[in-house]
Order: sequence, then structure tokens, then C-alpha cells
Amino acid sequence: MPRALYTGDRTFSVVEHDERPPGPGEVRIDVAYTGICGTDLHIRHGAMDARVRQPAVIGHEMAGRLAEVGEGVPGWAVGDPVTVVPLESCGTCPACRAGHRHICHNLNFVGIDSPGSLQSSWTVPAHLLASLPAQLSLRTGALVEPVAVAAHDVRRAGQITGQKTVVVGGGPIGLLVARVAANDGADVLLVELDRRRRETANRLGLIAVDPTTDDISALVDEWTAGAGAAVAFEVSGSPAGVAMATQVLAVRGRLVMVAIHPTPREVDLYRLFWRELSIVGARVYERRDVERAIDLLAQGTIPVDALITRVVPLSQINDAFDALEGGGEVKILVDCQGATDA
Amino acid sequence: MPRALYTGDRTFSVVEHDERPPGPGEVRIDVAYTGICGTDLHIRHGAMDARVRQPAVIGHEMAGRLAEVGEGVPGWAVGDPVTVVPLESCGTCPACRAGHRHICHNLNFVGIDSPGSLQSSWTVPAHLLASLPAQLSLRTGALVEPVAVAAHDVRRAGQITGQKTVVVGGGPIGLLVARVAANDGADVLLVELDRRRRETANRLGLIAVDPTTDDISALVDEWTAGAGAAVAFEVSGSPAGVAMATQVLAVRGRLVMVAIHPTPREVDLYRLFWRELSIVGARVYERRDVERAIDLLAQGTIPVDALITRVVPLSQINDAFDALEGGGEVKILVDCQGATDA
Repeated sequence: MPRALYTGDRTFSVVEHDERPPGPGEVRIDVAYTGICGTDLHIRHGAMDARVRQPAVIGHEMAGRLAEVGEGVPGWAVGDPVTVVPLESCGTCPACRAGHRHICHNLNFVGIDSPGSLQSSWTVPAHLLASLPAQLSLRTGALVEPVAVAAHDVRRAGQITGQKTVVVGGGPIGLLVARVAANDGADVLLVELDRRRRETANRLGLIAVDPTTDDISALVDEWTAGAGAAVAFEVSGSPAGVAMATQVLAVRGRLVMVAIHPTPREVDLYRLFWRELSIVGARVYERRDVERAIDLLAQGTIPVDALITRVVPLSQINDAFDALEGGGEVKILVDCQGATDA
Repeated sequence: MPRALYTGDRTFSVVEHDERPPGPGEVRIDVAYTGICGTDLHIRHGAMDARVRQPAVIGHEMAGRLAEVGEGVPGWAVGDPVTVVPLESCGTCPACRAGHRHICHNLNFVGIDSPGSLQSSWTVPAHLLASLPAQLSLRTGALVEPVAVAAHDVRRAGQITGQKTVVVGGGPIGLLVARVAANDGADVLLVELDRRRRETANRLGLIAVDPTTDDISALVDEWTAGAGAAVAFEVSGSPAGVAMATQVLAVRGRLVMVAIHPTPREVDLYRLFWRELSIVGARVYERRDVERAIDLLAQGTIPVDALITRVVPLSQINDAFDALEGGGEVKILVDCQGATDA
């Protein structure tokens, strides 16, 4: 059975490996598709080599079918369509004890801290499984994880229905945040530098503007009759994005910080004070976000065909990463069973 | 009747003026005491000369008695003990229409943007009045405004009872925030560089630590069994205070930004993301905070004698400002009727 091994030096090697039979409490999955996300790109870049033990099987956005069910795993059967919620918490740290297991102090992010799904056969603890509805294709099911991220981010904003909302940054997560917010009844404006991403946003039914040609503050001012936006999401990861997301908010406006900012950023705390803004951190997702994501995808409310720009076989994984880095792609899925490009 | 006029160049001139009889909807107050706050110090420093029209009567922390009641002012009588809630909102801007009149886009902060209470006779719109209970001395009543600030700040933190809480900065507002939080059942640790302020904190029944001799992160870690604090208040106004208040928080911890940071500050947005923190701006107060402050002071739960370090007559106002800038004082009240030092 093939799997992709990250071996450092910006390289994956596709090698054969033996299936690992599930132990008690485990299941073995035939992985159908694995999506490549921004974190995976960071890993391949070597930016996370201190955390990712090489050689590493990465990948955490996936869908597949149960191939084997270990002992002591009631309620699951061979052939069941599933995804894996790739968060293993310790259960005993202060975060877990406070009920925030998804941000456990000792979180094992499966696919980063332990082996992931860029392999045809994957054996995992059964308690990480989430069931996929029969009407959801496994191709679409591979998007459950990023949609759960977006659902969590939107939930962190609080009440959003009918609220003017600015999403700064239109990569895959920014697009999904904007789409989920719009599904929740928010009135959404996406700000994105890249023309192709703006076009993708349009295909998702979103209005997208270019901050190099539009004065976003003036635009939001006009759009909101001088009030400012009720909600903003910072999904660009840039200092300029932080400044813009703070600037556009109305009194008591809420900024959800979705992007990862590896170094401290300048924040206009005077504006925060003056308008009594809130800035809220959002990380990964909880079970209910995963369930929400499955519902959203099963209802067909996320135009997945506008997001999945390519499906490649495992053998072309290095090309897929190169293509993502080159821009123009949104989401590339790796077909972990197939031998040919889809 | 004497009043203090800020005439620029770090100077107040005490001059005689005529009482202004109240027009319809107005009252005239014999001002008993006016407290000097940090904003007043900034004004005297010239830092707000662009906003404060000279010559200016400033002052917004006060208590007094009604001396005259204008036409169309039901429910008030000469002799009533009162304070003034010094916020005049426009009623029509987006903030007012959203119900956040205290942070009105066109807010008139009385005592900054329009004449204040550093005068023996003050005529104001009656709708700004708040009634003081008979058992509250006017000396204590002059603290209603800063206690309302603290009550608002604490309310912005959300549920605080039983929560480990770090207050960074022990000036008058930091001390009051810590005291009000403790009254609400929070378990409070105050961080303050200045020994005399720490001693004042102790007199207020608070535990205060010195960040130059204690490793605050390690201390909070030990205090909270590795969890971190649930709530922090940034009341120092310093970049180091922002960093500390972010650093000490537990997962889902809430940081209330109380101090004014005139320039953007570096904020550890990675920590915000990783622990799903919230940062909340807090500015002035709402009516309910003023009512809460009056209740707290009337109940005697704020040790005002530890806070009011001096009372001076209006004639000594320049000395009072000098003494505040010199440190060691907490709150100085100006006796706006008296001719002698109390």
C-alpha cells in the first residue's frame, strides 16, 4: 500500500508500506481523499521541522471507508464512510478540565504530531471518527475538516445573522469563513489581493474587493452608513490585514483572529478602547463544528466544485504542493487509492 | 465665585466668575469636591490642547448639591446631593442607535469637551444628574465617576466570581478595578512597579506583587496550578503591561484593555490564537455602572480613605497637580467651596 513520506528538504517520497491491523479500540481506514492545507505547505517548507518528526506521514483533511474494525469498537462496520477528527486531547490538563479539549495543553494534532492520512491505509483510534452521511461523496467529505474550521471561526464571532461582516483574506479558509458566515445570514464582504481568488469568491456567491484599488475603510463606511462592520475575520496573516480588520469595525465590533501570526503584530489598541471592540482568537474546532460542517456539506450549501480545483494521485504529491505554492489553485485533493489523475 | 481656568503652559488660574442661572432643563450645582484624574493631568501637560479649548474649566469627578433648579426639571429640589454623569451623546449616530450611547461617535465628554466641575458653581443639563444617597458623604461621592469606570471595566470581563484575575497596573483606576473585581468575588492579584502603590493596594485589602522582583508568569502559573488566569486587566498603559496581561491568561482567558495606548502596541496574536483568548476594549461607563458605583460606595465596600490621599482648596490646584505628578498620591480631591486645606 502506498504512502507519502515527508523526508525533509521540501520532498515527499511515495513508498510502499504494510497495513497496520487495528488494535483494540482502533479502526483501519481505506483513505479515499486527503486535502492539502496551508499547514501542510508550512511543513513541507521545513518551517515545522522542530515539531514534525521525520520521516512523517502528514495529512489531516480526509474521507474514507472503514476497512477493518478492531475489538471493543461498537457501532461501526466495515464500509462505513467516515472522516477523522484529528485532535487527540489528554483529558487531564487545565484546558481539558475546563471543557476546552480542542485546545488541550498537550494536544496531539493527528497528521502533524502523529501520522496522518496521506496514505492509502490508515489505522486510528475509533474515538476520532465522525460518520459521513451516505449522500455525501467522499470527495466532498474530504472538506469536512476545513469547513469545521470555518464553522468554528464563525461561531466564535457570536451572533452574525444580518450582520455586516468583513473577511480579510480569501485563501481556502477565508473563502469558507465567508461562505459559512453568509450561510448563517451575514452580509459578507471579502477583501483579497489576488484576482483569481476574488474570482473563486464570486463563484462561491460572494462579493470580493481588491484593497489595492478600493479604499476599504471608505467602502465599509459607505456600505454601513458610517457605522462600520459588526464583525471582521482576519484570515490573511499579514500586518496590513490586522490593521484593516481593526479599522473597519463598528462600536462593539468583533474581530475573530483566524490566521496564524507567528510574530507579535501591532494592534491599534486605541481604536479597540475607543470603540469597545473585541478581538477573539479561534483555533481548530470542536465536535459540534465538525457536525455542523457535515450538515452544511450534506445540504449542498457549500459549492465544493468551485473550491476543489484539482484531484491528483498520491504519486503526484510533490507536483500538487508545487502547484499550490504557485497560486491559482484553491483546494487540491490527493486521491489516496487512485493511480491516475482525476 | 472662584473657578480654575486651564490657560495652557501647564497652568491653572483661579479667577472669579458669575454664577450662571439654570435655563430650562438645567440645574445649577454648588460643587463640593472635584477629583483630579489622569486625563486631567494629560490636559495640563498640553497633550490634549487640540481637543480642549482654552481657557478651559475642566474636571469631571465630582459631587455637590443642587443650588438652583431650572424650568421643566421635575423630580429635583434645591439641596439634593448629586453627581454628574459627564457623558452627553448625540442620540442619532450609529453608536447611539445601536444602544451604545456611552461611546457615541460625537460624544461630548463634559469636563474635557465642554466646561467641567473645577468651579464652585456649575450649571449643567439636568439629564446628566445622578442622585446620591443621603448617607454618602460628598467627599466619597466625588469617587462615583472613577468607581463607575472600574465597574464598567469589570462588567466587560464577563463572569468574574471565583475567577483568578490579574490586574496589571495599580494607579487609581487599577486599584479600583482590582477592588471592584474582588468585591465581585474574583481572586485578584495586582501587579505594580511602585512600592507606594503596592502599599495602597494592601490597604485596600489586595495582594500586590512587584514585576521587577517576581517572575509574574511563573507566579501565576503556580497560583493557578498551570492553568493561567481567567481574566486580566491591562491598566498600566505600557507595552510591557500588554505583553504580561496576554502572557498570564488561561485558555479562553479574557483581557480587558482599560488603559489608553496612544500608539499601536505589539500583541502576541499567536498566543491569542493558541489559547483562544479574547481582548476586550472598555471605555467610560453606562448608567448602570454609575448606579453600581453609587451602591458600592454607599455600602462602604470601597475603602475610600486609603484612596483619597489629600483634599486641597481650589486655590491650591497647581500644587495638587504637581503633587500627583510627583507620585505617592493616589486621589486628590479639590474642595471647590472651601478656602482651607482639609
